Amino acid sequence: MIIEMTPMSSEIDQSDLIRRLQEMGFQVARLDSRKLALVKGIDPLVRADLFTALPHVQRVLPLKEKFKLASKAVRNEPTVIEIRGKKIGGRELFVIAGPCSIESKEQIEECAKIASEVGAQGLRGGAFKPRTSPYEFQGMGEEGLKILRDAGQKYDLITVSEVMDASQIEIAAKYVDVLQIGARNMQNFSLLKELGKVQNPILLKRGFAATYQDLLLSAEYIISAGNPNVILCERGIRTFETYTRNTLDLNAVPALRELTHLPILVDPSHGTGQRAMVAPMARASIAAGADGVIVEIHPEPDKALTDAQQTIGFESFAKMMRELKMIHQVLKEIC
Amino acid sequence: MIIEMTPMSSEIDQSDLIRRLQEMGFQVARLDSRKLALVKGIDPLVRADLFTALPHVQRVLPLKEKFKLASKAVRNEPTVIEIRGKKIGGRELFVIAGPCSIESKEQIEECAKIASEVGAQGLRGGAFKPRTSPYEFQGMGEEGLKILRDAGQKYDLITVSEVMDASQIEIAAKYVDVLQIGARNMQNFSLLKELGKVQNPILLKRGFAATYQDLLLSAEYIISAGNPNVILCERGIRTFETYTRNTLDLNAVPALRELTHLPILVDPSHGTGQRAMVAPMARASIAAGADGVIVEIHPEPDKALTDAQQTIGFESFAKMMRELKMIHQVLKEIC
Amino acid sequence: MIIEMTPMSSEIDQSDLIRRLQEMGFQVARLDSRKLALVKGIDPLVRADLFTALPHVQRVLPLKEKFKLASKAVRNEPTVIEIRGKKIGGRELFVIAGPCSIESKEQIEECAKIASEVGAQGLRGGAFKPRTSPYEFQGMGEEGLKILRDAGQKYDLITVSEVMDASQIEIAAKYVDVLQIGARNMQNFSLLKELGKVQNPILLKRGFAATYQDLLLSAEYIISAGNPNVILCERGIRTFETYTRNTLDLNAVPALRELTHLPILVDPSHGTGQRAMVAPMARASIAAGADGVIVEIHPEPDKALTDAQQTIGFESFAKMMRELKMIHQVLKEIC
Amino acid sequence: MIIEMTPMSSEIDQSDLIRRLQEMGFQVARLDSRKLALVKGIDPLVRADLFTALPHVQRVLPLKEKFKLASKAVRNEPTVIEIRGKKIGGRELFVIAGPCSIESKEQIEECAKIASEVGAQGLRGGAFKPRTSPYEFQGMGEEGLKILRDAGQKYDLITVSEVMDASQIEIAAKYVDVLQIGARNMQNFSLLKELGKVQNPILLKRGFAATYQDLLLSAEYIISAGNPNVILCERGIRTFETYTRNTLDLNAVPALRELTHLPILVDPSHGTGQRAMVAPMARASIAAGADGVIVEIHPEPDKALTDAQQTIGFESFAKMMRELKMIHQVLKEIC
Repeated sequence: MIIEMTPMSSEIDQSDLIRRLQEMGFQVARLDSRKLALVKGIDPLVRADLFTALPHVQRVLPLKEKFKLASKAVRNEPTVIEIRGKKIGGRELFVIAGPCSIESKEQIEECAKIASEVGAQGLRGGAFKPRTSPYEFQGMGEEGLKILRDAGQKYDLITVSEVMDASQIEIAAKYVDVLQIGARNMQNFSLLKELGKVQNPILLKRGFAATYQDLLLSAEYIISAGNPNVILCERGIRTFETYTRNTLDLNAVPALRELTHLPILVDPSHGTGQRAMVAPMARASIAAGADGVIVEIHPEPDKALTDAQQTIGFESFAKMMRELKMIHQVLKEIC
Repeated sequence: MIIEMTPMSSEIDQSDLIRRLQEMGFQVARLDSRKLALVKGIDPLVRADLFTALPHVQRVLPLKEKFKLASKAVRNEPTVIEIRGKKIGGRELFVIAGPCSIESKEQIEECAKIASEVGAQGLRGGAFKPRTSPYEFQGMGEEGLKILRDAGQKYDLITVSEVMDASQIEIAAKYVDVLQIGARNMQNFSLLKELGKVQNPILLKRGFAATYQDLLLSAEYIISAGNPNVILCERGIRTFETYTRNTLDLNAVPALRELTHLPILVDPSHGTGQRAMVAPMARASIAAGADGVIVEIHPEPDKALTDAQQTIGFESFAKMMRELKMIHQVLKEIC
Repeated sequence: MIIEMTPMSSEIDQSDLIRRLQEMGFQVARLDSRKLALVKGIDPLVRADLFTALPHVQRVLPLKEKFKLASKAVRNEPTVIEIRGKKIGGRELFVIAGPCSIESKEQIEECAKIASEVGAQGLRGGAFKPRTSPYEFQGMGEEGLKILRDAGQKYDLITVSEVMDASQIEIAAKYVDVLQIGARNMQNFSLLKELGKVQNPILLKRGFAATYQDLLLSAEYIISAGNPNVILCERGIRTFETYTRNTLDLNAVPALRELTHLPILVDPSHGTGQRAMVAPMARASIAAGADGVIVEIHPEPDKALTDAQQTIGFESFAKMMRELKMIHQVLKEIC
Repeated sequence: MIIEMTPMSSEIDQSDLIRRLQEMGFQVARLDSRKLALVKGIDPLVRADLFTALPHVQRVLPLKEKFKLASKAVRNEPTVIEIRGKKIGGRELFVIAGPCSIESKEQIEECAKIASEVGAQGLRGGAFKPRTSPYEFQGMGEEGLKILRDAGQKYDLITVSEVMDASQIEIAAKYVDVLQIGARNMQNFSLLKELGKVQNPILLKRGFAATYQDLLLSAEYIISAGNPNVILCERGIRTFETYTRNTLDLNAVPALRELTHLPILVDPSHGTGQRAMVAPMARASIAAGADGVIVEIHPEPDKALTDAQQTIGFESFAKMMRELKMIHQVLKEIC
């Protein structure tokens, strides 16, 4: 439920009301100087007039979705997250590029240089790698994070890297701007709660069998724990089709737009698993209304230690960027 | 296998070679004046030198896909199908619009008028409706087809309507330009073989659990039976996600581009089942490289007898068309 | 809606009531001497008292499922279908065995002999084969059907063979007892309607992306067109798992038991696509409450022209039959 | 790769060989007094004769699966895990029962009493609950674990409870016998590695979009980190079918039997989400060859705080146990 206070109500009135609602057993989130959301403790039997009788309450609106703070009912305009002067979720295109795994200083420098040159905003690279098999390359760890930070600073790119458990949050938060949560951890609820305690924006990837609602409830875990800066990322679901690694579900873009105010990115690299499909699906993502894309690039894609098959080279990346800007320009004109 | 003949070989040489291959037990398709494809009778044990030893044979190329005539190995440039002066599969945008079901002369006339005004090429409407339940509206039949033909002629639009079994082919072919095969009949092999015997282009919709290869093998049924004019159409697959009616799989667009020379359309109406998602996903389809889209429109969408929830009104349709043209213009510039 | 007439109502009263309801625009099915079902023409606005006001009507019950005649609301006890003295749907185990394709008289005779010896009730074999590729073996046609009929008569087994379109119904019905509809044709509604006009029981296989409701609505097409003898068959759905050919969904057995009175078989051969999994999944089918199974056997499984990988040999088949009888005996004791 | 040593080789010879292989850069697992497995460091270019040239090596066998220690190549006989005198994975039926969430001492006592009376071996109950929404009941924590331990001791039942992150392992291991990893954490690789360091057997549930290979690779994470006692549990996957909460995939039972030596349980409660389907699917699980089942029971199922819809009452549970014993008796006779 959303409680709207009267125009005349003061900050003290609001604090009083919050306390009172908490005493009644509700978990309350402050939306703005006149709006509160009851996110927990509400059940279908609770009637609106219980609240309208309280002092300074003007009216009560229902909050029918299971996710609350992530919903458009709570916040109707898009959330814009600003990171070191770059904005995601607004009217500008936001592109994050980089290798699947951080392999060396040179590799990251080269990726950062091209990303910067073609006008991307972010640099990605994995230091802790979630691998299906315990016998595969597990990442460079802290050393990799330092390399990423340095390249990000040198080329003025925000940096993104994945954390796989709570013990990695502190160290990752020290070096990178945005913490990424991978598809396999989207419902690692313990980890989500911990992410609510940091300041860094969180890039939350959709699990490969997660519904849109599941994704938004996972975002809700982070937001309700204190961190409102969640960026959603579609990266493909599992279906019967085996030609692609996953089935990138672009329906997620307009569907999530209907449901939430959070920024939406798409990862066409993992979503397709096919180099030749990255650019077409990146274009389609922007045309569908996504705020941007995150793609895997590598100086020598065929030599990438991980995900070689879906990684594109610098020339393809530069061409793709030109295309995305043109499509994005069309979107700006029509929306 | 593809057999390429020497530059000097005559038409008679080719006829002789075809006859000889047929006597050897192979099914042969003539690709052009110098190329033949062996589509049946080949097994892994047949060696290329069996053919290179034949007169006028220059070289032999493997045909590794299970589909043959639909593959790019057999034909590398895109197939362009011309229907009453309008081309699908070339560099122009191709949009087909119309109601799910033909309900009345007025309804179809209005749809044709707007389609023509906004620059669409085709008019769709169902006369025989495949309904999951036997108790739902089953369509107007032949009377509907006449209405469709008349409106198509009046507004210079090619017409598209679905046939559900072999007995409907003759009558539908008499009235409409393009025969549509619905998702539920994509593997109705008896029907596919019959469609190989008509001249009309076939709009073949992907079954909702069909792989890309399955779709191309169904196209192969039609082509190998004599009708090369097959238009593929992605229209959504079934997944665990229930927010949308189906999961429109736009990966199909670049994937099919890699595999086949046939034209590719997308149906964002059935693919999403949600009115608000039709335009974004139509834009994304074009950005991914589709030749066009087929969408459900209705003078009064909420009153549509079938598929009301996914049908858009005329104003939304006109806006969508403007957007698609802009996106398509970008694609023409970059590809 | 179900209309129950008063105990005193006569046959003439019932005929009068049926006529009257038809004049009101409803499609009526006679369930027994006192019960009618309105299967079409009902919408949420029709109120029960419209009917209770009619002569001889005692009470009106809602029919909430979209499928009507297939539902337990219309018929609460299990449907038992008797075919040449053998019953399916009752308390006895019903096993159908035979090769995927009819290849020769000898092959079918051998299969029939072993099937008869181990106590199976039915003999299956395909004469018209639905093949994903047009270039694969398409079946022996009528000659195959004769071979099947002869073997069935000689060994006192009921016979089952697939029809792929309406033109094959007449000839198949002439030779075999049960007409099978394959997964790819489950929503070939034109064919389903034609099957409503014959006397033969129909073995209706679940489409590989069909929900339980879809399957029952397809059964409804057949029943409402006049043929109440529909046998449902679970045969696997498409999922992301690639180890098995399909994912045999045994949940269908208890789920369909809740929803319908029709007999339920399981096909563990197509459902798994793996020879070693046929017997365990056949046992599980019976333990879950299925009325029986349909399995692919062959004198020399590795030499089967089609489906070799999922076909079991005679020794494995005999062992499986012993196991199924033991499991079935347990079920009889506990249910 | 598996390295078999000569019959004459001593313990010292083996230690020497292990050291030497480690120096060569391989990760080595000792299988028995004469067998070693190389689980890491092998690539397709490594040739067998590199190893046969080493002292005391008799022969080298390939290990083609991506999972090694979980594979049958490494261990052909079934793993039997003994927990406080009860064996899982042998020839005896193993049933674990209890509520979804631990709610009170009384509730757990009652469940333990009935479980013991009907012959179950284990008691389950959640103290830390993974909930899709942050606003739902999150469990009783340590207090719940104490209640579970006490009831397990009083009624001689082994106890099972879920841990959601590494920080809960120590406390849970202190109170319960078996640590459960839920479907959402199946690919929480950081957690899996930590579980390799404890002595407790691990009940590893299949993720709802995980392939059989994914599941076995997750088991491999635990085993390769030092804990060989992994119990696999099928609990349903996500498909397009919405009648059931998940699609319980019983094919997993015979498929995993082919691939691994680890014990296999099935969870028909989560797998179906439907009370009426629990017993039929439990019977089917045993008939398919599972080592046992884990089911949700509650003194008053309709009042369960979580999962009420899929929880069965004591009477149904007792009936189900009788049925499972009968089916299991059949399996013992035939296998």
